[in-house]
This record gives sequence, C-alpha cells and structure tokens, in this order.
Amino acid sequence: MERHFDQDLKELNKEILKMGAFAEEAIYKSIEALKSRDRELAKSVINNDTNIDTLELGIDERCIDLIARYQPMAKDLRFIATGMKINAELERIADLAVDIAQRTLELIDKPLLKPLIDIPKLASVAQNMVKMAIDSFVKGDIELAKKVLLSDPEANRLRDLIQKELVEDYMMKDGSTAPRAVQLLLIARFLERICDHATNIAEDVIYMVQAEVVRHHPEKLALD
Amino acid sequence: MERHFDQDLKELNKEILKMGAFAEEAIYKSIEALKSRDRELAKSVINNDTNIDTLELGIDERCIDLIARYQPMAKDLRFIATGMKINAELERIADLAVDIAQRTLELIDKPLLKPLIDIPKLASVAQNMVKMAIDSFVKGDIELAKKVLLSDPEANRLRDLIQKELVEDYMMKDGSTAPRAVQLLLIARFLERICDHATNIAEDVIYMVQAEVVRHHPEKLALD
Repeated sequence: MERHFDQDLKELNKEILKMGAFAEEAIYKSIEALKSRDRELAKSVINNDTNIDTLELGIDERCIDLIARYQPMAKDLRFIATGMKINAELERIADLAVDIAQRTLELIDKPLLKPLIDIPKLASVAQNMVKMAIDSFVKGDIELAKKVLLSDPEANRLRDLIQKELVEDYMMKDGSTAPRAVQLLLIARFLERICDHATNIAEDVIYMVQAEVVRHHPEKLALD
Repeated sequence: MERHFDQDLKELNKEILKMGAFAEEAIYKSIEALKSRDRELAKSVINNDTNIDTLELGIDERCIDLIARYQPMAKDLRFIATGMKINAELERIADLAVDIAQRTLELIDKPLLKPLIDIPKLASVAQNMVKMAIDSFVKGDIELAKKVLLSDPEANRLRDLIQKELVEDYMMKDGSTAPRAVQLLLIARFLERICDHATNIAEDVIYMVQAEVVRHHPEKLALD
C-alpha cells in the first residue's frame, strides 16, 4: 500500500505541474494576443478555460480520494491539503488570463494607444512568479518560495507605474483615450493579481514546510 | 469518538460562520467609509485584516486536525475539504474589502465626483450573495446555492453600468476627473470580484452536495 500511495502522490504532483503549465501558458498567450493583436489567440485562451476547470475538478477529486483511501498522516495530509489550495489558486490565475484575453478583444479593433513596454514586463514577472511558486511546492523548497515573495513589490511597482502613466499622460490629457486606457489599466491589475495568487501559493508552501518543521522540531522556531 | 467528531464539526461550522460574518462586515464597513467619507472606518477595515488572516489559518489547522484525528469517510471529508476552500474564498473577500478601503482613503480628500448610487447597490448585492453562499454551505442547501449563482448576472450588469458611466460621462467629457473616476471604477470591480468569490463558494457547495448524491444514488444524475 505504501508504494501505491507514493505512486499516487507522484501522480498528484504531475497533475499540479500540468495545471501550473496550463496557467502559465494562458498568461503567456493572453499577453501575446495583446501584443500582436491576435484575435484567434485571445479566443483560444478563453475557449481553453473549460479544460482548465475540468483539470481543477479532477485534481480536487484526486486529493479527496487520496485522503479517503490512504488516511495519510500529518505531513502527507498537509501536502495534499496544500495541493488543493494551490489548485484553486492556479484556476484563478487561468481565469485572470481569460480576463486579459477579454480586455484584449475589446482593444483589438481600436488604434494602438501606446507601445506596450511595461505590461509585457509585468507579465513576465507574473509568469516567473507562478513558475517559481509551483516549483517551490513540488520541491518543498522554502527558499524558492521566499524568492516569490521578494518579487511581489516589483509587481506592485510596475502596476502603479502603468496606472499612473495611463491616468496622467493619457486620460487626463485627452479624455477620448479613456476607453482604451481603462482596458490597459485593467489588464495591468489582472497581471498584478496573478502575482498575488503566486504569492498566496508561496505563502502556503512556506506554511506547509514550517508547520512540519515546527511540529517535529519545535526548537527550530527560535531560529527564524 | 463519534460524538466528539460531531462536536468538532459543529465548531468548524461556527468558525466558518464567524469568518463569513467578518468578511460581510468588512464589505459593509468599507462601503460605509466610502459613502460617509469616514477615514477612521476605512482604516479599521485595513487594520482588522490581520485578525481575519489569523482566523483563516486557525480554520485551516482545524480542518487538517479533524481529518488527521478522525479520518472521516467520504461525506464528512468532502464537507471539511469544501470548508477549507470556502475559508480561502472568505479571506480573499476580506482582502477585497481592504482594497476598497484603500481606494476610499485615496478619494477622501478629493471633492465628490458624483453621488454614489450604483456602487452601494452593487455592494448590497455582494453582501447578500456572500451571506447566502455561507448559509448554503452550513445548511448544505443546494437551492440557496443556486440562488447565489442567479444573482451573479445582476452584479455583472451593475459593474458594467458603473464602468460605462464613469468612462463615458466623466473621463471622456472631462479628463481631469480621471484620477477619481479610476478609483470608483476599481471599487466597482472589487465588489464584482467579491460576487465572483460568493459564486465560487456556491459552486463548491453544489459540487459537494451533488458529489454525495451521485456517489450514493447514481440514478439521480439523470434527473438533473
């Protein structure tokens, strides 16, 4: 039975990695669609969301089955419970990529407001944070999880910069730019929210690892 | 042991209700602060967030302990797992109330852009959806959960209405209104996102109840 459990846990890991890859891909494609004004690509992000929802439900079921079947002890139970939380975060990330794709479809027929520089930059911060966060979970790597937290201020800085520029240099100077500027502003906020979800994942990982450390070696608490 | 488990499950229910009440209160206060331009009230929402975060961690721990201690079977396990997911949703709802309070602080020193009518309306839809969603979980009431889903289009409609008015009647006509209009637009989006979280909770409840029904009475699937 032990070997089956390990095998099933590995399968769970693989499914979460797959979910993570889907979420990352959705972010990448939604921003590519925005940059290259590619309607079909934006639509593909929106259409793919039901696949991600199905995968999310499958992972949840797998977690509940794992717990019910093997009645794992604290450490494994905590890993599975964290997996369920991360699964939900990844689904939200994919939803935000859909939000970006929808805003992109609104912009595609209108003239370009400005060259896109900071939004792709923020998108690459977001993708990187999501990638690191999932890796930190799969490897139980607390240092990598902490790196995710360290990236969050940069994401906030970029979002504020983008918002300030859109409001002060566009909307205030020429009100007619507002409909397009608002869409870009929302896209920046969606990206920053993706970074928040990556931060949530990293915090869950840190909590998962530390709860075990504290449980087994309470003296280690003092070292933090 | 059976009686202890039931008792502990009741305690979990109570904690989730408490978390829900905190989240509802945070929404209410953040919008009250906006309406009455009450800086202290806005700050209190922001300061109270650490209490909600602590409560969230406590509920998560309680869930993991319940599973580890009693190794509950499918139905109870599913209830506890759903409780953990709802717990995370409620914490996000409280975070969004903090976002609203922060936008409110940005607006408080500036002249009122317009009388607030639709934003409080959307806030009351949001509060009501959160309330119904938590009730549907505690009672396992699938009909109530479906009512939550039925409210979501109204929330989207109000958000679109608010956004359209702010862009077309304010930002486009007078660019100098943009900094204030953007804050109100973001508040409307935060509220609508609260409605999304309530929808997530309701979907989790429906899934929880139906998974049990399908598991025990597979013939019922055909009735849906």
